[in-house]
Amino acid sequence: MKSMYKITLQLQRCARDITNMSQQAVNGISHRGRVLTLDSMNPNVKRVEYAVRGPIVQRAVQIEKELKEGVKKPFTEVIKANIGDAHAMGQKPITFFRQVLALCSYPALLEDSKFPEDAKKRAQRILEACGGHSIGAYSTSQGIECIRQDVARYIEKRDGGIPSNPDNIYLSTGASDAIVTILKLLVCGEGRDRTGVMISIPQYPLYSAALADLGAVQINYYLDEDNCWSLNITELRRALNAAREHCNPRVLCIINPGNPTGQVQSRQCIEDVIRFAKEEHLFLMADEVYQDNVYAEGCQFHSFKKVLFEMGPEYSNTVEMASFHSTSKCYMGECGFRGGYMEVINLDPEVKAQLIKLVSVRLCPPVPGQALLDLVVNPPQPDEPSYATFMKERTAVLSTLAEKARLTEQIFNTVPGITCNPVQGAMYTFPGITLPQKAIDKAKELGLVPDMFYCMRLLEEDGICLVPGSGFGQREGTYHFRMTILPPTDKLKVVLQKIREFHLRFTQEFS
Amino acid sequence: MKSMYKITLQLQRCARDITNMSQQAVNGISHRGRVLTLDSMNPNVKRVEYAVRGPIVQRAVQIEKELKEGVKKPFTEVIKANIGDAHAMGQKPITFFRQVLALCSYPALLEDSKFPEDAKKRAQRILEACGGHSIGAYSTSQGIECIRQDVARYIEKRDGGIPSNPDNIYLSTGASDAIVTILKLLVCGEGRDRTGVMISIPQYPLYSAALADLGAVQINYYLDEDNCWSLNITELRRALNAAREHCNPRVLCIINPGNPTGQVQSRQCIEDVIRFAKEEHLFLMADEVYQDNVYAEGCQFHSFKKVLFEMGPEYSNTVEMASFHSTSKCYMGECGFRGGYMEVINLDPEVKAQLIKLVSVRLCPPVPGQALLDLVVNPPQPDEPSYATFMKERTAVLSTLAEKARLTEQIFNTVPGITCNPVQGAMYTFPGITLPQKAIDKAKELGLVPDMFYCMRLLEEDGICLVPGSGFGQREGTYHFRMTILPPTDKLKVVLQKIREFHLRFTQEFS
Repeated sequence: MKSMYKITLQLQRCARDITNMSQQAVNGISHRGRVLTLDSMNPNVKRVEYAVRGPIVQRAVQIEKELKEGVKKPFTEVIKANIGDAHAMGQKPITFFRQVLALCSYPALLEDSKFPEDAKKRAQRILEACGGHSIGAYSTSQGIECIRQDVARYIEKRDGGIPSNPDNIYLSTGASDAIVTILKLLVCGEGRDRTGVMISIPQYPLYSAALADLGAVQINYYLDEDNCWSLNITELRRALNAAREHCNPRVLCIINPGNPTGQVQSRQCIEDVIRFAKEEHLFLMADEVYQDNVYAEGCQFHSFKKVLFEMGPEYSNTVEMASFHSTSKCYMGECGFRGGYMEVINLDPEVKAQLIKLVSVRLCPPVPGQALLDLVVNPPQPDEPSYATFMKERTAVLSTLAEKARLTEQIFNTVPGITCNPVQGAMYTFPGITLPQKAIDKAKELGLVPDMFYCMRLLEEDGICLVPGSGFGQREGTYHFRMTILPPTDKLKVVLQKIREFHLRFTQEFS
Repeated sequence: MKSMYKITLQLQRCARDITNMSQQAVNGISHRGRVLTLDSMNPNVKRVEYAVRGPIVQRAVQIEKELKEGVKKPFTEVIKANIGDAHAMGQKPITFFRQVLALCSYPALLEDSKFPEDAKKRAQRILEACGGHSIGAYSTSQGIECIRQDVARYIEKRDGGIPSNPDNIYLSTGASDAIVTILKLLVCGEGRDRTGVMISIPQYPLYSAALADLGAVQINYYLDEDNCWSLNITELRRALNAAREHCNPRVLCIINPGNPTGQVQSRQCIEDVIRFAKEEHLFLMADEVYQDNVYAEGCQFHSFKKVLFEMGPEYSNTVEMASFHSTSKCYMGECGFRGGYMEVINLDPEVKAQLIKLVSVRLCPPVPGQALLDLVVNPPQPDEPSYATFMKERTAVLSTLAEKARLTEQIFNTVPGITCNPVQGAMYTFPGITLPQKAIDKAKELGLVPDMFYCMRLLEEDGICLVPGSGFGQREGTYHFRMTILPPTDKLKVVLQKIREFHLRFTQEFS
């Protein structure tokens, strides 16, 4: 009981921190005379929210510190299932990738017989494309040319030969950077003319954060939870028509495979979306960073580019699109390198010139990330010495992920009050949770949204860090959380079991 | 004569490209029906300009391609003296840094006896601070904690013991990223309430670009060319008072040592600036990325932080400031890694929370860049095996730079019509050039600003790529160019000689 009291206290403290920050200013920290205060700062930044690293994660970091300092808790470690961070969850890097990166970092190793020839060949090729043969030189702002060529070849292979032009490839600092850059080009106008951007709900909060920052109008379209989080054109049309009353909708963002929802779109659905975008004169943004993360039988990744071109010139010559990819996900999970690219289709050549100008201000994406991206799009080939190891490592990661996707769905669906769609792809599950009315009331009393209250309790009681569904958006009156499936299988089983027990306990407490 | 005709033709083509892009739309590329066009895009982005990678550099890249394809030119290589890119100019990376980065990339090398123990120790420490002991994991958004601690210790040592708090350190993707982030927090208001930001003229065009992008008001204060580009408080006050008529000036940006102007501010000047900022209620942004690049006798780098604290609590407890540093410059010149940090002083705690939220949207700065930064702020110590080599390499770079700084000033000042201030610090010279009236008229006829015409001619005739002074700002009726002093000494001598000859030829042609 005493520990429950403590937890409640902590939650109250937390709620105060989150919801009542301005009060703090009045009570404690004076900001008299300051140039930059909460009141005098950019209001768009204040509107930005990013739940994946929000208050719950800050509390998780704090708890980790407390554990280190010897504070007694009902658990011995915090498991951060809030973010798709594969290496942090124990996934090992792909050997070949890291060998090449070491060679690029310290080229004296090119003389070392311990490194395979194909790794040396790749490193040499990358270094030759760098100024002064050093990854410490700036690259061109669009990214190193031979790497953009490799990206284009990778896309062509992926899309069954549909041509890709290296001039349409822009390397980036992770996918986030490219997404924000394209949105920045698109957002303009005032009042009813302000650019509206359609995003799925649930969404990945980079989108809502970027739209708040840019002062764009966020247009929500809801995914169909009852049908495996599928995208429904009727719902797209509803959202669009409603938005036209108050803004100028110009952009449609799609995440496929879905984050946080894990669905993989059918070819038919993608065709429908493209037709819709053309009819409604929308710029398409296809977030395809999970393109290699497809697990469910019968599901397959179809790139928007490929479907667009298969729909014929009427579409492929007119629909404007940008597709995004990253080194952070898939089988490599190299988040820390911040590598990524986008391919633009049918972008106005004048706008392209503006885009190049805009990216040049930041000089270039990190070159180690560019090098890594080159390896991702140009991995060892069957006739090369590193091929066998590479394939073994790659397959092991992807098949384990597929197993964990199944396991997650299976275990969650045994819990009364948790409903979990199949994790067809990506790295997350977004199950619906039924919360008793008393829990909802208690949350309100504490000034927390109900699923934040739920997740905070789980964190305090079991050391498991999830992200509340409210951070991604959800239909009113429904509650969810996002959990990554990345923990090692054994640990994942423990996590699922603990959540199961917590959920039953929580439900009982408030029934 | 024929070749002169060709050059004129090319210049005309260039001028058309630069100044008349919208015409192109009307004549050629149709954008009927496009969602995103020059007319319908974000107007702030259109206003962005970044001369360091502008049209002249694009032409330089094109010429390089032409040379490769066998096109005959009056030169055999293009020398890109437009950007401070040390490695591209042949400077070798610091061995110790690259050894540690190789170890971090491929930790299997930790077993390799070829690597010195101190490099292994550093790598192990960095890896232990990474999620899953991998630089492929995301770090916290503010940057890895033990690296922020090292940065704080570095600052304390630099500033003679004045305390630095790791909580005030934010790692970044190069310094540019942090500069834009702080500006983003500061810019708000509409019309006469719109935030005004004071920047030096000449300036580093990241500032004007960021201000255009954010829609802030740029307030120009002119550096005193006749006094070694020094900063004059009377001029600051003039600029501020004029600006108060039409906007809300809230920020004062200083670059010390200066880019593109190479001056090093005296301690007295910094004190005056701080006093001015306090009196006028301005947020200070101190761009100190060249803090190790000081060459002139009698000059010394004084950090704004140190001077602020030495002025007593009246100042150190009230003046809000951010100072920026980078891994791209100094003796290491590791531009490609995009490492950097800022230290904030007296930032409102609530604004800090907003800052952390804002940077969390981009997840984290590239981890290899963070690792590199850690080595820069925590290099080999006298009792460590890598110390001797490290010091030898570091000293060699800095003493060569000092020699090149002197050489540049000396040779330029022998040319009638070129006036060159001493390069006291940083990596550039920004000499004034006298252009004959006929050349100015000719430039106007071609639709080019006069110093762009001059630089384009130099590029076409001698393969030397400089940036016109107009890209940095200059007093009306004066003309300059920026040149980096980074080429190897022998090549730099050739470059200076070629510019000398070109200038004489150019002057004669138009006299």
